Amino acid sequence: MSKKNQPMSGNDLARFSGTGSFMRLPFVNDLKGLDVAVLGIPIDIGTSWRSGTRFGPKEVRSQSAMIRPYHMGTGAAPFDSLQVADIGDLAINTFSLPESLKIIEESYDSVLNYDAMPIAIGGDHSITLPILRAMKKRHGPVALVHVDAHADVNDQMFGERETHGTVFRRAHEEGLILPEKTYQIGLRGTGYTAEDFSEAQKWGFQQFPAQELWHRTLSTLGGEVRRDIGPETPVYVSFDIDSLDPAFAPGTGTPEIGGLTTAQAMELIRALKGLNIVGCDLVEVSPPYDLSGNTALVAANLLFEMLCVLPGVAYR
Amino acid sequence: MSKKNQPMSGNDLARFSGTGSFMRLPFVNDLKGLDVAVLGIPIDIGTSWRSGTRFGPKEVRSQSAMIRPYHMGTGAAPFDSLQVADIGDLAINTFSLPESLKIIEESYDSVLNYDAMPIAIGGDHSITLPILRAMKKRHGPVALVHVDAHADVNDQMFGERETHGTVFRRAHEEGLILPEKTYQIGLRGTGYTAEDFSEAQKWGFQQFPAQELWHRTLSTLGGEVRRDIGPETPVYVSFDIDSLDPAFAPGTGTPEIGGLTTAQAMELIRALKGLNIVGCDLVEVSPPYDLSGNTALVAANLLFEMLCVLPGVAYR
Amino acid sequence: MSKKNQPMSGNDLARFSGTGSFMRLPFVNDLKGLDVAVLGIPIDIGTSWRSGTRFGPKEVRSQSAMIRPYHMGTGAAPFDSLQVADIGDLAINTFSLPESLKIIEESYDSVLNYDAMPIAIGGDHSITLPILRAMKKRHGPVALVHVDAHADVNDQMFGERETHGTVFRRAHEEGLILPEKTYQIGLRGTGYTAEDFSEAQKWGFQQFPAQELWHRTLSTLGGEVRRDIGPETPVYVSFDIDSLDPAFAPGTGTPEIGGLTTAQAMELIRALKGLNIVGCDLVEVSPPYDLSGNTALVAANLLFEMLCVLPGVAYR
Amino acid sequence: MSKKNQPMSGNDLARFSGTGSFMRLPFVNDLKGLDVAVLGIPIDIGTSWRSGTRFGPKEVRSQSAMIRPYHMGTGAAPFDSLQVADIGDLAINTFSLPESLKIIEESYDSVLNYDAMPIAIGGDHSITLPILRAMKKRHGPVALVHVDAHADVNDQMFGERETHGTVFRRAHEEGLILPEKTYQIGLRGTGYTAEDFSEAQKWGFQQFPAQELWHRTLSTLGGEVRRDIGPETPVYVSFDIDSLDPAFAPGTGTPEIGGLTTAQAMELIRALKGLNIVGCDLVEVSPPYDLSGNTALVAANLLFEMLCVLPGVAYR
Amino acid sequence: MSKKNQPMSGNDLARFSGTGSFMRLPFVNDLKGLDVAVLGIPIDIGTSWRSGTRFGPKEVRSQSAMIRPYHMGTGAAPFDSLQVADIGDLAINTFSLPESLKIIEESYDSVLNYDAMPIAIGGDHSITLPILRAMKKRHGPVALVHVDAHADVNDQMFGERETHGTVFRRAHEEGLILPEKTYQIGLRGTGYTAEDFSEAQKWGFQQFPAQELWHRTLSTLGGEVRRDIGPETPVYVSFDIDSLDPAFAPGTGTPEIGGLTTAQAMELIRALKGLNIVGCDLVEVSPPYDLSGNTALVAANLLFEMLCVLPGVAYR
Amino acid sequence: MSKKNQPMSGNDLARFSGTGSFMRLPFVNDLKGLDVAVLGIPIDIGTSWRSGTRFGPKEVRSQSAMIRPYHMGTGAAPFDSLQVADIGDLAINTFSLPESLKIIEESYDSVLNYDAMPIAIGGDHSITLPILRAMKKRHGPVALVHVDAHADVNDQMFGERETHGTVFRRAHEEGLILPEKTYQIGLRGTGYTAEDFSEAQKWGFQQFPAQELWHRTLSTLGGEVRRDIGPETPVYVSFDIDSLDPAFAPGTGTPEIGGLTTAQAMELIRALKGLNIVGCDLVEVSPPYDLSGNTALVAANLLFEMLCVLPGVAYR
Repeated sequence: MSKKNQPMSGNDLARFSGTGSFMRLPFVNDLKGLDVAVLGIPIDIGTSWRSGTRFGPKEVRSQSAMIRPYHMGTGAAPFDSLQVADIGDLAINTFSLPESLKIIEESYDSVLNYDAMPIAIGGDHSITLPILRAMKKRHGPVALVHVDAHADVNDQMFGERETHGTVFRRAHEEGLILPEKTYQIGLRGTGYTAEDFSEAQKWGFQQFPAQELWHRTLSTLGGEVRRDIGPETPVYVSFDIDSLDPAFAPGTGTPEIGGLTTAQAMELIRALKGLNIVGCDLVEVSPPYDLSGNTALVAANLLFEMLCVLPGVAYR
Repeated sequence: MSKKNQPMSGNDLARFSGTGSFMRLPFVNDLKGLDVAVLGIPIDIGTSWRSGTRFGPKEVRSQSAMIRPYHMGTGAAPFDSLQVADIGDLAINTFSLPESLKIIEESYDSVLNYDAMPIAIGGDHSITLPILRAMKKRHGPVALVHVDAHADVNDQMFGERETHGTVFRRAHEEGLILPEKTYQIGLRGTGYTAEDFSEAQKWGFQQFPAQELWHRTLSTLGGEVRRDIGPETPVYVSFDIDSLDPAFAPGTGTPEIGGLTTAQAMELIRALKGLNIVGCDLVEVSPPYDLSGNTALVAANLLFEMLCVLPGVAYR
Repeated sequence: MSKKNQPMSGNDLARFSGTGSFMRLPFVNDLKGLDVAVLGIPIDIGTSWRSGTRFGPKEVRSQSAMIRPYHMGTGAAPFDSLQVADIGDLAINTFSLPESLKIIEESYDSVLNYDAMPIAIGGDHSITLPILRAMKKRHGPVALVHVDAHADVNDQMFGERETHGTVFRRAHEEGLILPEKTYQIGLRGTGYTAEDFSEAQKWGFQQFPAQELWHRTLSTLGGEVRRDIGPETPVYVSFDIDSLDPAFAPGTGTPEIGGLTTAQAMELIRALKGLNIVGCDLVEVSPPYDLSGNTALVAANLLFEMLCVLPGVAYR
Repeated sequence: MSKKNQPMSGNDLARFSGTGSFMRLPFVNDLKGLDVAVLGIPIDIGTSWRSGTRFGPKEVRSQSAMIRPYHMGTGAAPFDSLQVADIGDLAINTFSLPESLKIIEESYDSVLNYDAMPIAIGGDHSITLPILRAMKKRHGPVALVHVDAHADVNDQMFGERETHGTVFRRAHEEGLILPEKTYQIGLRGTGYTAEDFSEAQKWGFQQFPAQELWHRTLSTLGGEVRRDIGPETPVYVSFDIDSLDPAFAPGTGTPEIGGLTTAQAMELIRALKGLNIVGCDLVEVSPPYDLSGNTALVAANLLFEMLCVLPGVAYR
Repeated sequence: MSKKNQPMSGNDLARFSGTGSFMRLPFVNDLKGLDVAVLGIPIDIGTSWRSGTRFGPKEVRSQSAMIRPYHMGTGAAPFDSLQVADIGDLAINTFSLPESLKIIEESYDSVLNYDAMPIAIGGDHSITLPILRAMKKRHGPVALVHVDAHADVNDQMFGERETHGTVFRRAHEEGLILPEKTYQIGLRGTGYTAEDFSEAQKWGFQQFPAQELWHRTLSTLGGEVRRDIGPETPVYVSFDIDSLDPAFAPGTGTPEIGGLTTAQAMELIRALKGLNIVGCDLVEVSPPYDLSGNTALVAANLLFEMLCVLPGVAYR
Repeated sequence: MSKKNQPMSGNDLARFSGTGSFMRLPFVNDLKGLDVAVLGIPIDIGTSWRSGTRFGPKEVRSQSAMIRPYHMGTGAAPFDSLQVADIGDLAINTFSLPESLKIIEESYDSVLNYDAMPIAIGGDHSITLPILRAMKKRHGPVALVHVDAHADVNDQMFGERETHGTVFRRAHEEGLILPEKTYQIGLRGTGYTAEDFSEAQKWGFQQFPAQELWHRTLSTLGGEVRRDIGPETPVYVSFDIDSLDPAFAPGTGTPEIGGLTTAQAMELIRALKGLNIVGCDLVEVSPPYDLSGNTALVAANLLFEMLCVLPGVAYR
């Protein structure tokens, strides 16, 4: 069907022109009829080291202007079959993390009511907790593919229970995710105790440290995850850009060396095709630390890769 | 009248969110009813040293997101009385300067037919020639306030007659401007012969080298220009960001040391209030050379200063 | 007295070595006997546009490593007569602005109990409200020299009453400052209404917009402020780095063009000598936006200028 | 023979000194007796997204100053057997793409008349079309090793037929290359239709997408290409720096994630030893986007790798 | 034993606060009781191309602030069993390389007298020669694991015999190292003659060029080195950051393309566990060329990796 | 006479092309017949804080490519009457300051023997001492116009007597300069004692602190200096780029706030016309700290200003 929204062609208007929407799709206010809603959640007050992710949505959209509609590597043609639009940014409260988390949850309730699959551009990782809360109301507990350098299962940070480092402990406690179908991929770095990661393994989380993935294709791991989840279970994909090595993604708040390559990230996402993905996010792009713009470029492309494995995407 | 378009408030949506339009005004396609049309002309193939001005409109708009609607220094409230919108970028031909100049002229013919005053965000200075051609068709020859480090009165560059360095010789030859009401302010630097600037003086151009303006307010000069032109003559204002010193505006293609300060630029523009300004442009912002973003920030603010002295602006 | 703490000499240890304390003074935990306590308040969650000021104290200290102990321009020798030390950073809560403001106030209560004059390195401007609250408990309402591009007298931002844009309205409401001895210097830019600044004038605030100061020495204005306050009244000095023009101080969150020069800032501060200054701060340095390091360098030097006009400083 | 031109040694003159020629070779005007002529083609008006490649030759030469004459990895000693010099930049027309393409072709006619093998430093990829036109006149249709993220086989861009995205369709139409001996290596990214790349396969082009090369040595592929071409057929090598992943080569106009590594690029080029290479180019380095200088550094080294596999190079 | 020095926790004081010591350990002046002394040697006058390594120690420490005490990948808990502190920078003579080398040797004599294992943060590679001189006095000739792009076995540079390019020839001549237990890993690039590296092979040095390591784990090589050295021989580890590819470590003085990945570097170091390491250094980080900070981040983490394989480290 | 060397025109070869010589003049080895020899002295091992000036000559030349031959502001046409060429860089010893100072003195002896006026591009300020030694041999003691933030009259730094901070004490002790005709302009900042600057006043040096020059034209001061020296006395001009404010010249080793503006620098130099200038230098440009390139641009232009006031320059 050619009636779907299409990214504006580079021959109709030079790519350095346009509204700054994701992939030059229309910005819309009305979610009716949308299959996929791309949205920004510009927040950085949940970060513990370097801030700046509030400018993530803006810069990721900016770098997405070069992406054309058809995926040469996989044949995916998402705009052939899905109605996709950019619905802009959520109106978070810049000064208050608790207020912002409430706004995010309520906004997601609304998006999910419209049956639109949400693709979020962060913002720091604290956004994923209210998203998962909304997901549970709609879909029940979800399987989780969580690609990240950090497990984000702290109990508290500075005494706060809802920050970018505590998301998945909270999600587990609140029953938002299926622990035995939670996959944490790319973990590495340093911690406070041996239990930092391993406690989550006891809950059922399956963890794949980066060091076990070096020099390897991730197509295999991706396939195992896909088979393990199965085609019915609703799945949420949360991709923290710091899962990548800082050579590939320097512009993030808490970089850790020895991470994934961009090629591995693409292999992993492509292998998820066939899952019942109900939403995804790409978080922790911090433009002030991204002088080359490469991090936002990688993020924009990985969002396109995620879009290409959503249920219902046409392939040519 | 509160029915006019208003810049989106920073309390309604965080300033790092939004569509990327100039001052967070609406992007519109329909020019009907517009008093002022802000538009981008993203081109850099008329440049002779450093390129990059094709990203000028995008970045100037981006930096304009912090500008609020009311001018604290002069009391100007342009959105009280004028209908202003961002009409996006002209669809220039990235590969051909002659084709692009034609597109610009035709686009301006159309804008001027709607009675909208155009404010252009460049792009290199070559855009001003087709603009002046369109202006002449609508208004006859215009007075010109031209703020620049360079007189741009070369005859040819690499054998080409229409580049960013030949604009005002062509404009003079074609009778687009009133030579005795043409003011070139901020000239400086080096050249090939003593005649580089002085030939234009013989045509009637009034030239004000930067070195005569150092350490001085430009309110006085601005006032003299205003009185000399008088309130009726249609006036075009062309502001090349390289008129400013590189300390204030590093991100430009052909920087020259010893330029104007930002304060002087504001004084000059404010002094033009009361003239029959029919259009203006701000050119030569080159974002790849503007690492701090300051050049685009200055440009965005000077565009707002120009908006504030257009005919019909309300003052509180 | 040579028993006072002295900055470590560049000939004893190369300036690129050392602990990273302010001016290479000792870091101390015990405030007993201190005349002046330099401290950092690393926070940025009170900012509305660009974040990053959480790294301000670190970078300002880093750039202070080149400052030698004696002021060649004024003859001030602060370390001859005052015991000065760096007491490190306050342990603010990175995720919660209200919690952090409480911590700041309590910390200041403690510092002031020791009779040490505090010099704060921000952090965003929201830190000044709890500081003034502590000041009032100790000194009663204070005179205020507030150098800034913005009046910071909003009532609310995103519904919050305590942010970097509402500080001085709160301070006025709570009786922390003497309104008729409150001087706001360097104001400029755009706003929402004509009342944005002028309401504060009705409270008694004396406002000196930047545009009235262009091309002028500020020694005169500084002298007038000094005479107006008189030698007895306790005075607090709050210096927002965005009072300076972005050419001089690009690394800040909400830059406004047409600001003060560094020379003007030094003239102003030097003219305050003789006042009963009880504390001061330098806020809004945002290192991620300060690629050259110049903003932190300016800030470090202006802090030294403030140190040099504190009561009791020896002059040679 | 020690009479050949030698790069100036770092012990004779510090490497940060010198004329800025490629590898500190002599700059010469006379091509007589040259075996290899290194030249720059500084143009960027054929680009569609980010410009800046006009500064490519200058910066690649600048970064080449660290390269010593002997290849430690392969034993190649090109300056033992070949007379190599830098003949400077072609005097292209900065404002006109068609004029510049003519100048390039004529310049190459002249270089090839002298029997010098040309190594070109771009500039954008539009330069390769006139080069191939000259090559055909001299050598007949050539085999082509084309390393690139993009196939550059568009028919038109903005209605123009000769840009950096249409080169190899034109080359095919004009019979400049042997289609069945045309190898496109490193292709990836997004496109408009499934035919964007595949139409070229029908002409005979052999395409090797990057995704099939991830995690693998390219020595094998390089060897296959070498055997397939055979030792007699004249071969042209066109290396677009965007074939590399942006982590390795950020400073380019249209970066695509998931590219080759530098090691792979070296493996590929080294495997071409033994072919009858008649010329080569390295294009699309855009210094304004290359803040670290790494892209120009990689390019300079890959040019040296190409020099080392030219016919007639001595090995020790 | 919990009495050992511990890095300050990020929950006690935000990570952007603190003294700037390595890993937020205490700065101490007294070496008594220290098992490991981390120290900086801030020098760059031994460099031949780009300078700037004098700021290496400062920036590596700065980036180390994010490292937590426990190694999630290997279980190493160095602060459980070893008393570690940062003893600051050596007071080198900024203007004289010979004077500085003397200071380094004398300082090391002193550190080694206290039985503290020294970990040095460079500085350029010229520091390793006086370190090895001191090592020999204490331990006799040592085995050497030398990770570097360059063999650093020149005889002279500009007629000087002690620079960053001559270190290991001098060390060999002076009998500081065991030649048959000297491993040079990561060598590559260009040189003057085929003997540039191979002469050292004749002395017994074992060289592992980077090109033989591409696409491979270095765990194997590391294990071979470990077995070859055996558990008793004292070993010194000298890690030049330019062994890494410039994509991973751009901020260095003489970058060479085609280098190791960060993952390979970690594999290599981890494999050294069990050796009798008596000291190590990490050299050639040049912060002015490290705009992203990634190079210093990698360096800080590799220093932690080296700390984790020192004799006596506890594993959990 | 049109036989003189002329800068290559921008219409003959695009300005981003060329050999990288100063102002696109010829590079020559033979000094015979030269009136003016421009040369680089690429050294930074005399610096005490930030290094990097070894790349100064390269980058200043690079930025000089935009300077055209005729001075629009003063009418100077130096290439009409003087034979000017770039003679490249001195072959200093990168590792040894004493050796390099000897090389500089000997090189200057040679240049002065040819009767060529030398214009040096630094390098750090330590180069001026050997230059003055050579000058004395040729001209006897010279008058000195020294523009700088620092008096550079330390006795020792780290025990060394010849560094960038001791130049003018040594020059005074050795009788190289006429103390009563020594003018130090732009001094400011902090020091160790009140005598840091004032001791030099006792020798006869005339000092003009920057703070006395703020907001003022320097034409007056320049004229006074000119009259005071008189037309016969040989004069050397040493211009340290850190005399300028860091807003105008960020890329330098020891920046001090509150400096001169570029306009003031030009006024000062222009006022020196008519003096018997026998040589000049521009020092302390440090490209690694000059991200915008502005510092090198200012330096290149100030060198042209100095060229324009040399004896014998034609004016049109």
